[in-house]
Order: sequence, then C-alpha cells, then structure tokens
Amino acid sequence: MEKVVAVAVGATRPAICSPSLAEVDFRTSVKMSGFFNVSRLRSLQPIKALEESATASVVQESAAISGNNLCQNSTVAKSTNILWHKNSVDKRDRQQLLQQKGCVIWITGLSGSGKSTLACALSQALHWRGKLTYILDGDNCRHGLNRDLSFKAEDRVENIRRIGEVAKLFADAGVICIACLISPYRKDRDACRSMLPEGDFIEVFMDVPLQVCEARDPKGLYKLAREGKVKGFTGIDDPYEPPLNCEIVLKQTGDDCPSPADMVETVVSYLDDNGFLRA
Amino acid sequence: MEKVVAVAVGATRPAICSPSLAEVDFRTSVKMSGFFNVSRLRSLQPIKALEESATASVVQESAAISGNNLCQNSTVAKSTNILWHKNSVDKRDRQQLLQQKGCVIWITGLSGSGKSTLACALSQALHWRGKLTYILDGDNCRHGLNRDLSFKAEDRVENIRRIGEVAKLFADAGVICIACLISPYRKDRDACRSMLPEGDFIEVFMDVPLQVCEARDPKGLYKLAREGKVKGFTGIDDPYEPPLNCEIVLKQTGDDCPSPADMVETVVSYLDDNGFLRA
Repeated sequence: MEKVVAVAVGATRPAICSPSLAEVDFRTSVKMSGFFNVSRLRSLQPIKALEESATASVVQESAAISGNNLCQNSTVAKSTNILWHKNSVDKRDRQQLLQQKGCVIWITGLSGSGKSTLACALSQALHWRGKLTYILDGDNCRHGLNRDLSFKAEDRVENIRRIGEVAKLFADAGVICIACLISPYRKDRDACRSMLPEGDFIEVFMDVPLQVCEARDPKGLYKLAREGKVKGFTGIDDPYEPPLNCEIVLKQTGDDCPSPADMVETVVSYLDDNGFLRA
Repeated sequence: MEKVVAVAVGATRPAICSPSLAEVDFRTSVKMSGFFNVSRLRSLQPIKALEESATASVVQESAAISGNNLCQNSTVAKSTNILWHKNSVDKRDRQQLLQQKGCVIWITGLSGSGKSTLACALSQALHWRGKLTYILDGDNCRHGLNRDLSFKAEDRVENIRRIGEVAKLFADAGVICIACLISPYRKDRDACRSMLPEGDFIEVFMDVPLQVCEARDPKGLYKLAREGKVKGFTGIDDPYEPPLNCEIVLKQTGDDCPSPADMVETVVSYLDDNGFLRA
C-alpha cells in the first residue's frame, strides 16, 4: 500500500477563483476532517503529511471501501434497506465555492402572468453578478423528467412534487434554483416549501389579473380553454389559489405593470438582503 | 416608463472569480445579444447605454412579458401544448462561470463494489480543484424524488430513468454530476446515456467480483438475499449486465484492489484529458 498523504478537508473550502487562487486559498485555510491518499493525483500536489484526523467523515483507505461511511438505515415509502450516504463535500462547502447560498425561488401564477419572463431575466441578472442559477420550468420538465405525467389531478400533484424534489437537490448543490410553474394549489406549493430548510424557499407570486393574462394569451391556451378544447385550465375551469403569506408579491394593478427589470430588482434585493448572494 | 439602459449579454460571461473580478471581466468582454433595464438594479451599475440589439434573444420590456420568448410548441408523451422556453443564460454561460464542463459520471456496479466511496472521494478531489460536483446517489434519491417507487421491475427502470433525467439537468447546469447506483441493466444505462450530448456521459464500471462484494457486505444485504429475505437482489437472484464499452473500468483482480485514491486519479485524469475541467 502506498504512503497515505493526508490532505485537509473541512468547512473552509476554496471559493472558485482562478484555479491557482483556489489552490493558494486551499493551502492556507485548512481544517482537518478526514484524510485521503492524493500522492498520485495529478495537479493536486501533496501539501503536508498530517497524522491525525479530526472528524474523519470521509474516505479512509480501508474503511470506506467496505461501506463504513454509511450513517443511517431506514425504511421509506415503498422501499426498505435504503441507506443514507453522507457525502464528504456538503452544501456549505459548495456554497463557499460558489460564494452564494443555495435556495429555491418558486415563481407561481396564472398562465401568461410572466413567470418564465421573470425567471429568464432573473437568471441573467444573477449571472451578471457571477451567481450560478438554474431554471426549472414546469413546461420544460414535461419534456424530460415528467414526460410520463398527464394533466389529470394526481399527475399534476406529482408533477409539482417532482419539481420540488429536484429544486431541493439543486439548492443542496448550492445553486439558486428558479422554479417557474403555475402550481395553482396552496397545499402542493406548501409541500415543496416543507422540503427545504426554513427560509430557503422563496415564493414569488405573479399577481396579475386573469383578464390581463387572458388578453396576453401568449400560448393561445385561454382561447382553447374558453372554446372547451382544453379542459381543467387554471383560471377558466380550474381554480388558482393565491399564496396567503408568500415572500414576494409582484402585483399588477390596472394598467400599471412592473417591468421585468423592476421585478428582477425586487427579487435580487430580497436575495441580497437575506444573505443569499454571499456564502 | 423608465429609460432603458442596455447591458450586453452574450457568450462571453464572467467566470466566477471575486465579485469584483467578475465585474471587471463583464465590463471588458461584452457582446450584445439583448437589452435589459438595469438602471435600478443594486450593485450592478449601468455601464453604457446601447441603442441597438443584435440577436435580442431575451428580455425586452414589452415583448417578453407576453411570452414572445417561447420558441417551440410540441406534443410529448402524455401532454400537449407544452412549450419549450429558451433560457437566456445557457449551459455554455454557466460553464464559463464555473470554468468546467457539465457532464454525468455514471458509476455502476454491484452492491458493495465501492460506488459511493468512489463518488465521495471524487467529489472531494474535484472540490479541491475548485470544481462544482453533485452526487446523485441511488439510495438517497429513494428518500425524495423516487420515494413513490418500489423495487419491482418497472419501478427500478423508472428509478434509473428519473435519476438519468435529473443528472442531465445538473450537467446542463454546468455541474459535474456523479450518479452512483447499481443500475444493473445495460439498456437502462444506455437510455440515460442517450439523454446527453455525445461524450458527456462517462460510464464508470466498478469491476469487482461478486465474492469480494459479498465478503464486504457493508449493508448486510447479501446475507439477507442468501437467506431469501431480500428478493431480486442483483448478483444473487437478479443479473448484473456489465458494460460492454464504457469509458472507464476500475477492475479488481484477486486481492489487488485499487485504492480510492488510485480510482479517483483515473477518473480525474479522464476528465482532465477530455477537457471537462476547463470551460
């Protein structure tokens, strides 16, 4: 067996800078929580042999390979013998790397209320600030993850649940995840909220009157719904339940429609004020 | 309406450095593809008023709000009238920000072959290099996204499909996504491969003999399977189909077991050699 060269890993990780900067940062701000043989790893030169291991959460030459890094056995809904694996690089580490906090911005509202527009504009504005975002669009997900789902009631619930679960994974990855989907029912949105740590689910309500959305009718779906060619369409023959106590309301009153930039500013300010734009 | 201050957006985006560096980079390497009112956006000072718009793919004050940024209508499996939204910040932009290429490292092999161990070690090693990774663990996903699935044949297929779809989203987000799950059948793995652009699905086969995995039996499941208490267990009463032509094989022969560090080196070298560790 080769000599083990211990390399420190811990809560303090390099933020993404240039690779060289990251290396410097890593070498100078080191905390010990595990060790790992990196003597043959390219481009990651051994730093210093450390003998002790503090929390040793991770990979040890012999132990980890036999599964000793497992930490919890449980029974979930339809499965037994599912073990939860502790990942050595955790959310805090990734947030440090990205210099931001992972969260879910959940944009809800009627079809035509401008959800996707806000999502795109928001992802741009945040990208300009060097922040990593990802948009989960309800429609787009029906091309992939949710392609097996129809528009019947239970499938709509499942559609939202899955997007909530995936959004949670993205937030855990450190990404600012922007989910935009009608999500008409309060209980489905609240179920997604409950998946996330307190404060990390930021519900944004596009409060635009039905008649405005219907006048826009960007996809021609209101027309089809009025003609009875699309059934169960939110706002026409299926209800929309506005949030009772969400983080952000973007309200249109009469002809006074906030511009995408105004809306983006509101959301970005919220993120900034609540510490999501730093680690 | 406020004055529109145009800010350039395009293929050349700031890499994440320090926020100040990103700002400098953004200001100096600007390409025009849309415009956007940022005059009231905090911390993002107006740069220069530009009159023209080149490709105008994104947010325009009046057009986008009415859904004109939609680009494709289609019918998918169980849904009609699903429109595909073009996101203004795309994979290339995110890769530039992260200085890496999004991809899926799909680790397959028997229970006890060391998949999760490799995944953890790999995410550590890449994190040290300042790269953003995320692990999708087959077991962990059964606590969330796939909690409605059992272990019967069709649910196993669906379990793998969903993880493949989510891995694809992570790769699209620019993340190096590490999926580790037994995924015993070739056709299920190949279906996930086919979701991704050529070359972005990196299949890693943990080629460890059954008797070695069974001797480790980290979760005690082989014992239960031999006793008939767990049915359809891969390697015991359900087959494992080894990849025929995967990107990386990590082989154990006899007592010669590569260390996690050796395995990590092999995978990191592959990523490096194939350009995934730069934008």
